[in-house]
Amino acid sequence: MLAELISIGDELLIGQVVNTNAVFLSKALNSIGVEVVQITCISDQKEAIVEALDASKNKAQIILMTGGLGPTKDDITKHTLCDYFNDTLVENTEIRAHIEHIFASYVTTPINQENRKQALLPSKARVLKNEHGTASGMWFEKENQVIIALPGVPFEMKALVNDQVLPALKKKFTLPHIKHITLQTYGLGESAIAERLIDWENALPQGVKFAYLPNFGKVRLRLSGKDTNGSELTERMEAAIDKLIPLIKDIYTGREEDAIEQTVHRKFIQKKATLSLAESCTGGKITSLLTSLPGASSYFKGGVVVYHTQSKTDLLGIPKALIDEHSVVSAPVAEAMAKQARARYHSDYAIATTGNAGPTKGDADAEVGTVWIAIASKTKVFSEKFVFGNHRERVVHKAVHKALELVLYHLE
Amino acid sequence: MLAELISIGDELLIGQVVNTNAVFLSKALNSIGVEVVQITCISDQKEAIVEALDASKNKAQIILMTGGLGPTKDDITKHTLCDYFNDTLVENTEIRAHIEHIFASYVTTPINQENRKQALLPSKARVLKNEHGTASGMWFEKENQVIIALPGVPFEMKALVNDQVLPALKKKFTLPHIKHITLQTYGLGESAIAERLIDWENALPQGVKFAYLPNFGKVRLRLSGKDTNGSELTERMEAAIDKLIPLIKDIYTGREEDAIEQTVHRKFIQKKATLSLAESCTGGKITSLLTSLPGASSYFKGGVVVYHTQSKTDLLGIPKALIDEHSVVSAPVAEAMAKQARARYHSDYAIATTGNAGPTKGDADAEVGTVWIAIASKTKVFSEKFVFGNHRERVVHKAVHKALELVLYHLE
Repeated sequence: MLAELISIGDELLIGQVVNTNAVFLSKALNSIGVEVVQITCISDQKEAIVEALDASKNKAQIILMTGGLGPTKDDITKHTLCDYFNDTLVENTEIRAHIEHIFASYVTTPINQENRKQALLPSKARVLKNEHGTASGMWFEKENQVIIALPGVPFEMKALVNDQVLPALKKKFTLPHIKHITLQTYGLGESAIAERLIDWENALPQGVKFAYLPNFGKVRLRLSGKDTNGSELTERMEAAIDKLIPLIKDIYTGREEDAIEQTVHRKFIQKKATLSLAESCTGGKITSLLTSLPGASSYFKGGVVVYHTQSKTDLLGIPKALIDEHSVVSAPVAEAMAKQARARYHSDYAIATTGNAGPTKGDADAEVGTVWIAIASKTKVFSEKFVFGNHRERVVHKAVHKALELVLYHLE
Repeated sequence: MLAELISIGDELLIGQVVNTNAVFLSKALNSIGVEVVQITCISDQKEAIVEALDASKNKAQIILMTGGLGPTKDDITKHTLCDYFNDTLVENTEIRAHIEHIFASYVTTPINQENRKQALLPSKARVLKNEHGTASGMWFEKENQVIIALPGVPFEMKALVNDQVLPALKKKFTLPHIKHITLQTYGLGESAIAERLIDWENALPQGVKFAYLPNFGKVRLRLSGKDTNGSELTERMEAAIDKLIPLIKDIYTGREEDAIEQTVHRKFIQKKATLSLAESCTGGKITSLLTSLPGASSYFKGGVVVYHTQSKTDLLGIPKALIDEHSVVSAPVAEAMAKQARARYHSDYAIATTGNAGPTKGDADAEVGTVWIAIASKTKVFSEKFVFGNHRERVVHKAVHKALELVLYHLE
């Protein structure tokens, strides 16, 4: 079963927002066996919407549109679909009551005519009630296509997808299983890896695709498969991986089940261990990544960003003499930071980073790209030096990733 | 001049990566007067690429493709374009030398046949040398379309666009000016705003479009215009805004020239003031936003994340008695955190946040969604209570934004 996503909104075409809705929808559809063949972002214009719908006919049976369902003049998705399906708008009394309830309960301004018009919906559409807002979702069927329109506000759209769209699609269609497994490697370029894998790639079982994803020094290898029989698919893919691992054993660093912060989150909770952080060059990125996951407070004790040399002394009590002797980007300073964070936050583990992300040298005289990462636990303190190149964003990205990798390694 | 972006890669269609390349490219093209009419994400498959190119013919004169230019088997953009333009691959000796130089200088693994093949390029293409990598960009022209293919690795793509693609497009075409101005409002829903603006919207000058962007309680109002004469366009848009402001003066919070963290960054540097942070419920998000901007170390002294009640005492010396008396989510605790952060980081200003983002109550007994934000300066300490609803992500987002708004307000 193939789907196309149509994202409607000029804000996408001028680079004012990034299309995270498409990421959520692609994952959600894949999880029930629907493959996304195209994501099309278009303007809030009737002709653009009609053209995208026409073009979708030979590509996909499921069309999932987002955006343009608000109450204002620039929201034209509902009217366009109404015309496209030769339909008329009729008032849905349940939705009208829902909109009035939302205004009475949560909104400080009085309801107006435009809000009430959101209860006017195409007569042929199955209405998907939006518990978190006033813009209903709509489900149309025509000529073997299912066309679903959802609001673009992310948390409203997500709830509609999880609670109504996915269950309805699973009920309507017999869907296959789609599975992606991504393996992570470190230290070898994609072409060098590919050279090793020529025979293995040529012998891949049917229905399994293979891709290289190079980014910031790591190359991820992804196998994607689709089959009506989920357990047979898994077996086939795992058999292929069993033959792959020996070919990459020197560079293989593990599966990417989740983002690494999710693994850290899960493992710390599992092991009932606690964590704290002292960040310099990573500027709070690690703390922020971890605390963005609900439930982080059960293991994450806190973090301190000590950007400047003075605050390393004032906040963490790192002796000025130690910094002067070894420089601020050094193993002793990284280790002292980790020890102090661990002590002050009363945590089982602590991570510290100190380095120079560039573009200028800052307080440190270390070469741009140099980062020391230290891990402190009850029994030991460990530190390691990395040189991550001269591109600021990349240096920070790599330092964050490596710090999380190291703490995972020491936790296990 | 209209452009379409074609982003190639299965990773986009399974939700493994978010399409930030499209954000960069849309902004870059807008900045030279090129309008993006569609962004199309497709699979690494020959048929999908050919179909997208065929479909683009009536939509855009400039096609900017990214992805699929690597050295491995799943990279098929170059071969597809070569066939599409009835072309043949020829070795480009300059690029071959460049690839060999990159391997000799930066790569630990030896160059292989696949890497060398990256110097084989379509004979009809103008080659865009990639200073940061081995995948060259390509510029084709056919039947009044310019078709440009670039690597998908963000920093390689960005350098090629800034250094080569934009200058070449400006040279080839006479381009108009495109201008977007976004005004920010707070406290009124989009339909209530629209009701006020009916007459104003109907009287908008030709060539100026208007849009509402609701998100997390704020509604942004965007005017977009296009004209060959840039200064006349600006005048026309500013005249429309002069008539708009009186209609929204009670809810207008300023222009969105930049993201708010960029304004904070700029203003603190301008005023030579310094800033520190003590974050509880925002979990390091504010620190991380500010330190992601190069040059932050010139005004940002650091931040501490004190998630747990105990660390508020241990790291910032907030008296346990004060917390017990007023609860951890309270004005006195928020103010004490701000004062202590300011003192310990020796900064002119400090921001503190303490609240309950949910989903559970945590250490606090405050209602989910309650956040106290305090600002400390040399002369005063100020705090304010907010209730941001019961959606964790939204609570944190609003608290981060409001904290930055408040510190800007107190700075000025």
